[in-house]
Amino acid sequence: LQIRDFLNDQKISDVADLINEYPDFEAQIVANMAIHRASSVFKILDLSAQKRIIRELPSFKTAELLNELPADDRTDFLEELPKEVLRDLIKLIDPDERKVTLSLLGYPEDSVGRLMTPDYVYVYAHNTVEEVFSTIRKFAKSSETVDVIYIIDEATGELVDDIRIRDVILAAPDKRISDLLDGRVIALHATDDQEHASQVFKMNNRVALPVTDNNNILLGIVTIDDMLWVANEEYSEDIQKIGGTEALDEPYLEISFFRLIKKRVGWLIVLFLSEMLTATAMAYFADEIQKAVVLSIFVPLIMSSGGNSGSQASTLIIQAMAMGEIHLQDWWRVMRREIFSGLWLGGILGVIGFLRICIWHFLMHHGVIQDLYGEQWMLIGFTVGLSLVGVVLWGTLSGSMLPMILKKLGADPAVSSAPFVATLVDVTGLIIYFSVAYMFLRGILL
Amino acid sequence: LQIRDFLNDQKISDVADLINEYPDFEAQIVANMAIHRASSVFKILDLSAQKRIIRELPSFKTAELLNELPADDRTDFLEELPKEVLRDLIKLIDPDERKVTLSLLGYPEDSVGRLMTPDYVYVYAHNTVEEVFSTIRKFAKSSETVDVIYIIDEATGELVDDIRIRDVILAAPDKRISDLLDGRVIALHATDDQEHASQVFKMNNRVALPVTDNNNILLGIVTIDDMLWVANEEYSEDIQKIGGTEALDEPYLEISFFRLIKKRVGWLIVLFLSEMLTATAMAYFADEIQKAVVLSIFVPLIMSSGGNSGSQASTLIIQAMAMGEIHLQDWWRVMRREIFSGLWLGGILGVIGFLRICIWHFLMHHGVIQDLYGEQWMLIGFTVGLSLVGVVLWGTLSGSMLPMILKKLGADPAVSSAPFVATLVDVTGLIIYFSVAYMFLRGILL
Ligand SMILES: [Mg+2]
Ligand SMILES: [Mg+2]
Ligand SMILES: [Mg+2]
Ligand SMILES: [Mg+2]
Ligand SMILES: [Mg+2]
Ligand SMILES: [Mg+2]
Ligand SMILES: [Mg+2]
Ligand SMILES: [Mg+2]
Ligand SMILES: [Mg+2]
Ligand SMILES: [Mg+2]
Ligand SMILES: [Mg+2]
Ligand SMILES: [Mg+2]
Ligand SMILES: [Mg+2]
Repeated sequence: LQIRDFLNDQKISDVADLINEYPDFEAQIVANMAIHRASSVFKILDLSAQKRIIRELPSFKTAELLNELPADDRTDFLEELPKEVLRDLIKLIDPDERKVTLSLLGYPEDSVGRLMTPDYVYVYAHNTVEEVFSTIRKFAKSSETVDVIYIIDEATGELVDDIRIRDVILAAPDKRISDLLDGRVIALHATDDQEHASQVFKMNNRVALPVTDNNNILLGIVTIDDMLWVANEEYSEDIQKIGGTEALDEPYLEISFFRLIKKRVGWLIVLFLSEMLTATAMAYFADEIQKAVVLSIFVPLIMSSGGNSGSQASTLIIQAMAMGEIHLQDWWRVMRREIFSGLWLGGILGVIGFLRICIWHFLMHHGVIQDLYGEQWMLIGFTVGLSLVGVVLWGTLSGSMLPMILKKLGADPAVSSAPFVATLVDVTGLIIYFSVAYMFLRGILL
Repeated sequence: LQIRDFLNDQKISDVADLINEYPDFEAQIVANMAIHRASSVFKILDLSAQKRIIRELPSFKTAELLNELPADDRTDFLEELPKEVLRDLIKLIDPDERKVTLSLLGYPEDSVGRLMTPDYVYVYAHNTVEEVFSTIRKFAKSSETVDVIYIIDEATGELVDDIRIRDVILAAPDKRISDLLDGRVIALHATDDQEHASQVFKMNNRVALPVTDNNNILLGIVTIDDMLWVANEEYSEDIQKIGGTEALDEPYLEISFFRLIKKRVGWLIVLFLSEMLTATAMAYFADEIQKAVVLSIFVPLIMSSGGNSGSQASTLIIQAMAMGEIHLQDWWRVMRREIFSGLWLGGILGVIGFLRICIWHFLMHHGVIQDLYGEQWMLIGFTVGLSLVGVVLWGTLSGSMLPMILKKLGADPAVSSAPFVATLVDVTGLIIYFSVAYMFLRGILL
């Protein structure tokens, strides 16, 4: 009982930390808290801890906990479980709540419907401010928030407007709600993507937004705190894709080893098969390499410069598109910027590359290192320098256009990962390099 | 005047869209709205639109707008301006607000202090619920939110607790606030990093958090809606770093061309200079390449496989660390996972690489393509296959450990960008490849 008092005195996030520190006691800690606090702690735990706790708790406790969890957080937990476990747990939920949960789980993954809670305070337009307060007093306990109150049509259940608690408090007690409404309703649709919801929250200063169906019937509300979790999900998804992995959808340390491999190997194989074209290209130039081994020396340097500038360009554009800073119709402005960027960046690297060859020539000439360049060091320098301009230009161009093309095709721009762009640029980079070499060195070294 | 009515009837986000669509009228649109609505629109516009509008508005309108903007949003706008402009605009702000603004701008960039607003409702513990309501009615207009009320010590100004409006509404009018407090205060510190703030919001179900100084004096509050902007900032920063650019801190299309080049060229040069080591390594193996040109053919393929698996590993770990799923003390669990991942992924690519050589040998043997492998095709196959295992293993290992090492050194893990890891792996990949080749082919081809 002392433990119970101690736990009930702690902040929610401190209890969560405690659980992370003492995983052996996690179920006991949850079991020894007031149930509404236990549910607040449970919902911020990692999925793996949640699963373990549910497995260890006696089933009456599990039932209590699941029934106490707000509908949106319950959905959030249940949607991650295997079907069999889900089926067993659903049975523990009270009939009313069960109906709600099943309907929320019926919405598509990553949709607003999955984030929704049906626990809100609603009133009618003809209610007075005083009546609103008594409604709040009646339903606040079971409501997710009272910061925003919803006004629905008594006959049809349609959403009429929402009003902030601030405006209710400021109004005279006998004032009718209809006099306080501004008729500007901002509502989400249950099948909207969660990324869209997060955008609407960002642009409209609200702590909760109503969710309606096609007939404007109020289905539930989404609260802004859940948007922080959405933002994290989208962050993770995009970063993983940019790195050339499929989105894991689970924490790195919790995903099973073979699922992790599966998420990684797909792209790796696709990229590997595409990179085989470099072997084909190299084989095509085998005679040139035989005649001038010195050419092969700079292959990795030139290829990687294209890949690096391509990664820069593609991530810049992915980020800017995700933030709504760039739209498809801006393609020409982007392309123009990247052409000039490519020329500048390629020019700078080209000059450095040329200087590198001059310095090495000097060292070779004076016998400090083995002479590989020979008489034609300057032409080799031009070849490397000019190739760098071409490859970097090509890198920035394809890196920047690829995310836009993917978006245009309806795919996720984040798929144009750094490795994807690098691979694309590697093959063409080789061709650019050997073409430039041919231009400068034909009849001389080649 | 009809325009004014029309604009005042629109949602904030719709007016913002209108401005984005008709940039020629942006200043007029803002000038023709009720000032408090104009300020709500202004704060969600892009920085470039904000700047243009301020430039175009007559200075009395600018003054009105700046004075109307909530303190946190004013800081957010002003902090992005050049010093000269800032100095002129500050003069337009009323003395009281000016003092506030200057003090907020005094906090470090990306700190909680910059997000703070001093406009909140506070009461004392001895106040009754009824008194709280009348305080709210008095100060709600100028307060950022009334969803949470702050209790401070009358003598010292120290923060005692916060209480949700829900609990105030539910309590009897003559109840004292001291009876409603739970003594669990969650406060931010003005110099905390904004990323930390966003974590605290995520873990504690609050729509606003108090900000205190070292003496627990309440300085202001931060509201959750601003966390969505913080999340976007951090998203942008990390994605740009992962792509091998410095964080732009400005939208892609708005940053000046030479600033864009500056943000990109630094890393590009560092990576280029490091990649020069590949030229050194290749030069070192020039004799081997001369003897067996076939070896050079697979250099790009093998190098890029290391880079790709390294990008995967590093982004997975950056993401997991940013989300708090992995901590430094987990390094061994991560390393073990990545060793096995590297062996599996490398093994799979190695087998594919070996098969590729077998198939090509078959084609060469039957005269379909030029024979480059000769008698020793099988040893070449082994060389490529085994090198792939080694290079991919090395890629996953260094890709996963680099972000952790950076974090340990106090640097941002996101700096271990895809290009950075690829470069690191390229140089060592070459050495692995030629060493394996030497092992298999010494005295035969080499
Ligand atoms: Mg949730
Ligand atoms: Mg979810
Ligand atoms: Mg409204
Ligand atoms: Mg919620
Ligand atoms: Mg998504
Ligand atoms: Mg996305
Ligand atoms: Mg590469
Ligand atoms: Mg702001
Ligand atoms: Mg800022
Ligand atoms: Mg409290
Ligand atoms: Mg704000
Ligand atoms: Mg930061
Ligand atoms: Mg960061």
